[in-house]
Amino acid sequence: MQEQAQVQANMVNGVDVDKLFGTIDAVKAAPVVATFRFRANNKWLGGGHNRTTITNFYGTQQEHERKEPFTLDADEPPVLLGEDNGPNPVEYALTALAACVTTSIVYHAAARGVTIHAMESRLEGDIDLQGFLGLRDDVPRGYKQIRMFVKIDADAPPEKLAEIVKLGPTYSPVFDTFTRPVPVSVELDR
Amino acid sequence: MQEQAQVQANMVNGVDVDKLFGTIDAVKAAPVVATFRFRANNKWLGGGHNRTTITNFYGTQQEHERKEPFTLDADEPPVLLGEDNGPNPVEYALTALAACVTTSIVYHAAARGVTIHAMESRLEGDIDLQGFLGLRDDVPRGYKQIRMFVKIDADAPPEKLAEIVKLGPTYSPVFDTFTRPVPVSVELDR
Repeated sequence: MQEQAQVQANMVNGVDVDKLFGTIDAVKAAPVVATFRFRANNKWLGGGHNRTTITNFYGTQQEHERKEPFTLDADEPPVLLGEDNGPNPVEYALTALAACVTTSIVYHAAARGVTIHAMESRLEGDIDLQGFLGLRDDVPRGYKQIRMFVKIDADAPPEKLAEIVKLGPTYSPVFDTFTRPVPVSVELDR
Repeated sequence: MQEQAQVQANMVNGVDVDKLFGTIDAVKAAPVVATFRFRANNKWLGGGHNRTTITNFYGTQQEHERKEPFTLDADEPPVLLGEDNGPNPVEYALTALAACVTTSIVYHAAARGVTIHAMESRLEGDIDLQGFLGLRDDVPRGYKQIRMFVKIDADAPPEKLAEIVKLGPTYSPVFDTFTRPVPVSVELDR
């Protein structure tokens, strides 16, 4: 993942595959390079409105800081007692999943030399708010089920396309975070 | 969740608690009102860059459409072979969690008549990219662990604050989505 002078980058799907394989070799030589810590800060703005700021993360044994922080507002729509100042939290969850499965397909296809020309997807997730409202403990608070449908145009015969799409759920960190029980602690910061 | 004329809204934490209890009564009378379907559309823009659009959702037995769609760009930082056009997918996942735990605390505190003056939080999540890179199958692809630290200023004695914070993980749909294995399907859209 070091910067390196290159006469000509070997790009597949907009991914520099020489750098990708360089990264893989670096991780194989020193697995600690692959240890990342991502971070977010949130500030409540009133009602269902709050703002997350993303600035820095740790990885490849060093801190990385963006020039400008990314700012993401969340709110609820009026029917959920908010003012629609941004997508709501469970819509952000779908966004994370869509982005992650897409990028996982693109990177892993690039590593296999498969060129993708275009990709789009649509997602839907079902929630029964009886869970959030605390009316029924046998109803999950979160998504009961999520479905993602991927349209892909790639240099591959039609019967291979489902295999390429499958790279997403196979390697995506967010897909894994949703489908596996992840330990999450929430504590008072005194 | 119906619009209703009100002389004076009974607001706690920016949440109209009369409407909140009205919603709870409506759901108790007809649980189908609580069935929601959230949606997202994603378009790949090249490399690690893709764009999610959030427009409409189904709930309270009808379709809801925003006046303007919300647009969210995701990308990877240079160290992960992207161009930093937006937060990366796992940072979006932290954003979803931060927003959801925050809103869950605010709404459930409001229902209990607890006034919150201010709230901020910071989150960190650990990922070992050996999983994403497919180098080790015993390393999870996603978050190994996530920690959220909440600073809260509320009308409650200090020993009650941890209890108020706990409303977040108890009721948050995204917290539940991360900590429980959720069925997620990813299929080719032909």
